[in-house]
Amino acid sequence: MNAEIIAIGSELLTPFRQDTNSLFLTAELNKLGVDVDYKTVVGDDRNRLTSIARIALDRADVVIFMGGLGPTEDDLTREAVAAALHLQLKRDPDIVASLYARFAARKIKMPDNNLKQADVIMGATALPNQKGSAPGQYLEGTIDGRERIVILLPGPPVELKPMFKDEVLPRLQRKLPPAFIATRELRVALMPESECDARVAPIYKEHKDVETTILAPVGEVQLHLKARGKSQEEAQEKVDALAEELEDELGENVFSSRGESLEQIVGYFLDMRGSTVAVAESCTGGLLGQRLSSVSGSSRYFLGGAIVYSNELKRSLADVPPLLLKEHGAVSREVAIALAEGIRKKCKSTFGVAVTGIAGPTGGTPEKPIGLVYHAIADGKKTEVVKRNFPSERDRVRWWASQQALDMIRRKLM
Amino acid sequence: MNAEIIAIGSELLTPFRQDTNSLFLTAELNKLGVDVDYKTVVGDDRNRLTSIARIALDRADVVIFMGGLGPTEDDLTREAVAAALHLQLKRDPDIVASLYARFAARKIKMPDNNLKQADVIMGATALPNQKGSAPGQYLEGTIDGRERIVILLPGPPVELKPMFKDEVLPRLQRKLPPAFIATRELRVALMPESECDARVAPIYKEHKDVETTILAPVGEVQLHLKARGKSQEEAQEKVDALAEELEDELGENVFSSRGESLEQIVGYFLDMRGSTVAVAESCTGGLLGQRLSSVSGSSRYFLGGAIVYSNELKRSLADVPPLLLKEHGAVSREVAIALAEGIRKKCKSTFGVAVTGIAGPTGGTPEKPIGLVYHAIADGKKTEVVKRNFPSERDRVRWWASQQALDMIRRKLM
Repeated sequence: MNAEIIAIGSELLTPFRQDTNSLFLTAELNKLGVDVDYKTVVGDDRNRLTSIARIALDRADVVIFMGGLGPTEDDLTREAVAAALHLQLKRDPDIVASLYARFAARKIKMPDNNLKQADVIMGATALPNQKGSAPGQYLEGTIDGRERIVILLPGPPVELKPMFKDEVLPRLQRKLPPAFIATRELRVALMPESECDARVAPIYKEHKDVETTILAPVGEVQLHLKARGKSQEEAQEKVDALAEELEDELGENVFSSRGESLEQIVGYFLDMRGSTVAVAESCTGGLLGQRLSSVSGSSRYFLGGAIVYSNELKRSLADVPPLLLKEHGAVSREVAIALAEGIRKKCKSTFGVAVTGIAGPTGGTPEKPIGLVYHAIADGKKTEVVKRNFPSERDRVRWWASQQALDMIRRKLM
Repeated sequence: MNAEIIAIGSELLTPFRQDTNSLFLTAELNKLGVDVDYKTVVGDDRNRLTSIARIALDRADVVIFMGGLGPTEDDLTREAVAAALHLQLKRDPDIVASLYARFAARKIKMPDNNLKQADVIMGATALPNQKGSAPGQYLEGTIDGRERIVILLPGPPVELKPMFKDEVLPRLQRKLPPAFIATRELRVALMPESECDARVAPIYKEHKDVETTILAPVGEVQLHLKARGKSQEEAQEKVDALAEELEDELGENVFSSRGESLEQIVGYFLDMRGSTVAVAESCTGGLLGQRLSSVSGSSRYFLGGAIVYSNELKRSLADVPPLLLKEHGAVSREVAIALAEGIRKKCKSTFGVAVTGIAGPTGGTPEKPIGLVYHAIADGKKTEVVKRNFPSERDRVRWWASQQALDMIRRKLM
């Protein structure tokens, strides 16, 4: 069973905007055992859209159209799909009534062009839209001798997602044979993708019944596992068996075994131990605090801290001795230690975490190049420091540095 | 002149990864006067890829394939495009030699499958790859009686972008008639999209020779203007004329008239005035500092500040009187003022900026609901406060709050 997802809208063909609904729909379809084989983006042009609909109906079992269901003259999806299917549109009196009611409730006279939103392809079911005025459509049928499912959804994610969950999903579940699919996601921080792959490839290649996808956003490697089975248990066993072997190989490098983010895991550990953390950030400028506090409920363990971008604030907010700054420079092992210990004392937290480095693009020297970052964690007994030379530019250096600092908290708590 | 961009790779059909190269390519093609009419994503499947190549060659003048140029058996773009064009592949001895040299330099024996990277479609020019081993390809010719340009590029953005700029762009510039296109981007903070559109639509609809696209990421509205002319000057005059009228209508709400980000503009103003800023962040947890320090060179005006997530730190790091916290609560006009004034004094900055609010999803009360945020800016004379009730969830509330705080700095400096 395969699918094609078609995103409609001229704005999706500009340099500024991108379809993201298809990621959501792909995840949902995959859970039903349906693979997405094609994604297409086309503008608000009737002929192009009709032609693309014909091509899709020829090569995919499930064809989902997103967008172009509004009331304006640019909204052509209904007409084009009907033309591709050689079916007529029929105005649905119930939808007409509900459109009038919708406008009446807002005390606005409905413009006549809104009536086209009540046009339904012959044989299709109109899908109610809880969040907007454009109904979706769902059609099952035989086209040129092949079973096809055709789905029309509104473009705005806030309308599309609930409509898919409430209206489309139950229909697909009834129609499609049951699929038993299990997934797992392991995450590894701060390991180069090539190194990670070299270690795990020999393992996952032995598990041919599990589909393994490796992604590598900045500072992280993600291993996505997916398996099918004759039952949900069997599918789950397959992914769990591979996940266990991968965890054995990668050991403590795996920070998350079910897809949680690094800040979530760190928060979970801190919360569990009843520990608190405070930060002193130089080159990250607030990024570490922002990530720690992005987790809901983080006020239980994140106290706050200081953004010590200037040297003066390293002294006044984190009690770094001026002599230390003068002797070793702000970007040094000694200052990182003093920052972590100073902020810990000042904030009366279990842990003090500090980051000081050179994010670039300026400020590098032969001795202290761009990308050089010191990270420290103090717990009142022993202060640990990690020195790293991160490659690449400002944003990435800062992200890597926050990743390293979070991972040091995690390892401290393990 | 129209184009189709085809992204190749099974990973682009998973829920995890998305083509982003096409945004870059669209911007570049638009500058040349080429519209992108279709975008397609297909997996590493030879038949599907060949069929998609045929469809694209039929409907687009310029067809760009991205990805599938590596050495593995999944890399099928060369073969599939050659098949769609009914052309043979020919192994290029120069590329073979450079592949061997590349591996020799790294003291690795080259696996034989790498040789297929030297296969060039008959009549195409191989494009050198400065950042990887896979050469691109460029082919101009007549296909079924129509002029076509076919381009093969590697998938990794770090390889694709320089190859496009260095190798493809000059060839397209020689081949295509000169296009005179000018663009402008105005940005407005904190105005609802519907309000902004209601004000500007009557204006831009009068300028039919300028294409206007409105985007609305969280907390911001962007007006993208684009015009063609018989000369560059004429195109520029068209967008500038509309931009001027839009700026007149929106006044001080326009924070950027050439696409700069809010943090860039704030940094520019601070730098120009020789002023400095320090922050005291509660609910934003470091986000405001992170945004201020994301601009290269920000150490000239951003000193740092305090992340005062806990009430205790509001006292110890920003000198908020305990009684004030007890009487009004942490989320209050009074505490926002005390934070701004306290951090200004503590950091000896020109301005002190504070944010305190309830980001959610928990912690809201009937009197102080989720989304309630106070923002304050102190300059030693008069402290201004803005109270906002932001809609929606945690991440958005935090982003809105940082946006509001940045905009208050901007207005103070105007």
